[in-house]
Amino acid sequence: MRIDGDRLLADLRELAGFGRCGTGVHRPFLSQPDREARDWLVRKMCDAGLDARIDGIGNVFGQSRGVARALLIGSHTDTVPRGGWLDGALGVIYGLEIARARCESGEAGPLGVDVISFADEESAYLAMAGSRAFCGCLSDAEIEAARHEGSRSLREALVEAGYAGRPLVRLAPDRHVAYLEAHIEQGPRLEAEGRRVGVVTGIVGIRRIRVTFSGRADHAGTTPMHLRRDAGGALVEFCHELRPRLEETRSPEGVWNLGQVAFDPGVGNVVPGSAEVLIEYRDQSVERLDRMEAEIQAAVAAADGRGGIKAEATQPLGLTPTTLDRNLAGLIAAAARGRGEEPLLMPSGAGHDAMVLSSRLPAAMLFVPSIGGRSHDVAEDSAEVDIVLGAQVMADAVRVFLDGKLRGKPGGGEFCVPVAESPADS
Amino acid sequence: MRIDGDRLLADLRELAGFGRCGTGVHRPFLSQPDREARDWLVRKMCDAGLDARIDGIGNVFGQSRGVARALLIGSHTDTVPRGGWLDGALGVIYGLEIARARCESGEAGPLGVDVISFADEESAYLAMAGSRAFCGCLSDAEIEAARHEGSRSLREALVEAGYAGRPLVRLAPDRHVAYLEAHIEQGPRLEAEGRRVGVVTGIVGIRRIRVTFSGRADHAGTTPMHLRRDAGGALVEFCHELRPRLEETRSPEGVWNLGQVAFDPGVGNVVPGSAEVLIEYRDQSVERLDRMEAEIQAAVAAADGRGGIKAEATQPLGLTPTTLDRNLAGLIAAAARGRGEEPLLMPSGAGHDAMVLSSRLPAAMLFVPSIGGRSHDVAEDSAEVDIVLGAQVMADAVRVFLDGKLRGKPGGGEFCVPVAESPADS
Repeated sequence: MRIDGDRLLADLRELAGFGRCGTGVHRPFLSQPDREARDWLVRKMCDAGLDARIDGIGNVFGQSRGVARALLIGSHTDTVPRGGWLDGALGVIYGLEIARARCESGEAGPLGVDVISFADEESAYLAMAGSRAFCGCLSDAEIEAARHEGSRSLREALVEAGYAGRPLVRLAPDRHVAYLEAHIEQGPRLEAEGRRVGVVTGIVGIRRIRVTFSGRADHAGTTPMHLRRDAGGALVEFCHELRPRLEETRSPEGVWNLGQVAFDPGVGNVVPGSAEVLIEYRDQSVERLDRMEAEIQAAVAAADGRGGIKAEATQPLGLTPTTLDRNLAGLIAAAARGRGEEPLLMPSGAGHDAMVLSSRLPAAMLFVPSIGGRSHDVAEDSAEVDIVLGAQVMADAVRVFLDGKLRGKPGGGEFCVPVAESPADS
Repeated sequence: MRIDGDRLLADLRELAGFGRCGTGVHRPFLSQPDREARDWLVRKMCDAGLDARIDGIGNVFGQSRGVARALLIGSHTDTVPRGGWLDGALGVIYGLEIARARCESGEAGPLGVDVISFADEESAYLAMAGSRAFCGCLSDAEIEAARHEGSRSLREALVEAGYAGRPLVRLAPDRHVAYLEAHIEQGPRLEAEGRRVGVVTGIVGIRRIRVTFSGRADHAGTTPMHLRRDAGGALVEFCHELRPRLEETRSPEGVWNLGQVAFDPGVGNVVPGSAEVLIEYRDQSVERLDRMEAEIQAAVAAADGRGGIKAEATQPLGLTPTTLDRNLAGLIAAAARGRGEEPLLMPSGAGHDAMVLSSRLPAAMLFVPSIGGRSHDVAEDSAEVDIVLGAQVMADAVRVFLDGKLRGKPGGGEFCVPVAESPADS
């Protein structure tokens, strides 16, 4: 089963025309270009021989004809504001091209290839709404509450798009045997290590802690230094002390970020009365996440009360790490080696629809290198040869899967190509 | 010349009714309550025997009849958003009460008392627009450019208020011999030192330096720690290092503040690509301000290039320190002692209209203690006995001034009551 690299690239380029924004794409979920892109994708799927439709949440689903069971391949075509042209679109068009190549190959068997583009992976309204609805883990209450930037409701936008009221496409346990997703890496590791294929071992857990410092807002000209209760100064010292604590605790591949700070009232002539910082940290090991959390809490405890400042922590987010299917990962790794490329076995530091799917199906992911590690930006790009190679590797893996013995038994031992231990455990 | 404390307090309470906001006042310049308060003040001035009017920039001016020369007393009645009931209103009502008491005393002489409430001291549109217009140091271009929060223009607002086109009241060198301003302290020093009267030796110089750190925005989940160029982290370390530098350099009464920080893009899952902090520092000595600036620039130089981050400084504000008139200050100090109160000789850490006036006239200021040092907040307050005492002390000083030998020669030696050296020089 050979994919057509030129056709694949042409489809990706055509899709990038919906919401083009300089060298990138601005195609947030349910925007006009996003809806046009979904209609385009339905036509492309139909041309590829799939039965295609858009469901009630906006998922675009293309179903193989004449088979009772299928491997599901997909990702998402919505983008962040002013995002890149590849991102999840890559994985959707891989699915389209592989289904098309399978159809053209004339080969048949009891397993087909279904293709899906999940709605709102990028959280314009509701993070991973499409994959969560597909897996039956999205409540009506969540859909009702979802709004774009606090104003337009998801429900309204679905009505306007004409999707509201359509039946939802659901994961069919009798039909869907496994899920594969390709995506750009969104980081610099493959490039830095000179690898052209990444095989994802798992998706890191993500936790956030918001630390709030409460002091007293005073006039910055008239209040002597020794009488101040400067919440901003307390924040600076806290962040300074937190750095070595987290650096010494994290795993080699663990990460943390202080991405958001705010001083209140936030003007030059008032001593900050309150200040807050959002700490995000990721690791593939729950035990490691717990240790990082303990360090943060210890730093908060050390800061609390110092200089008359109250320090308090809240935890607005906690996502459990996801382990992907070792056997499916091994299958992709073997396919890469079959094309002469030693893959890098790596965790994904970013969330993906595969996180949701993996709770219901054996799931695996393939990464394509990102030039300069750039993503979620119009500068995002990957080399064409890497894009085509990734698709061929996935097609090779699919071919083995469709023809092999794994049918209905992923997670079993047949494809147990050794996958490195999760780095967080090492 | 005895002031009527009850009448003074009643006027202050009545004025606080315009824009009442809980225990405080919301009366930004040219808001509806501000305009109503100006009309009320005109009536009050007329009742006190002054010729009163509102001029083309919104200054409320009450002129003594039958005299060719006058001492000018005033401050401002506009407030910050959700501010306190005293602030500059105190100094305006002191002027009103003293002019009224002078009129009632039946005493006459070649010198009268003119009263003024300056427009927009609090910078709703244009900082100290009223006193600057009065002193002839406000350009038409500045007025044309001034806008409230970037939208409504000062010119439009003046037209709507009905002030546009009226003649400006100007400082008259032949008439105005000196300027006195009372104000709440806006800080905790008088309270902390158990003093009831502050005599202001000068107004500190204020400088601001904005330091911008430029790194690279990266995905905080997929970018390994060692490949990041974290502008936010650079800012934290810079601020941490700056603290001891400024603490060791400042004078005992010098102050500094890091009141404003921003990370860009400022979200939890993106490594800050740029970050900036606004440093404000104040001192009454130019030499000391220069030394603080040198420390900041040295810290910027140390940070520049570290971790692949560019650090750059700009200086958006530089206000020269103001020295007030030693002899007028001595006059107020002597009046306080005459009422059994040893005054605190202190610099003002905040800016006041007296800064502007002092460039044209001998000027002095009296401070009344602020409870808990609070100001620019609805919690701002002063004890009634302190408010009344301050007015009586100023009235006593005015009486000596009007009857004494200083006429037309402030700055001379007649009233040379020793005033402590500026603390910044000690």
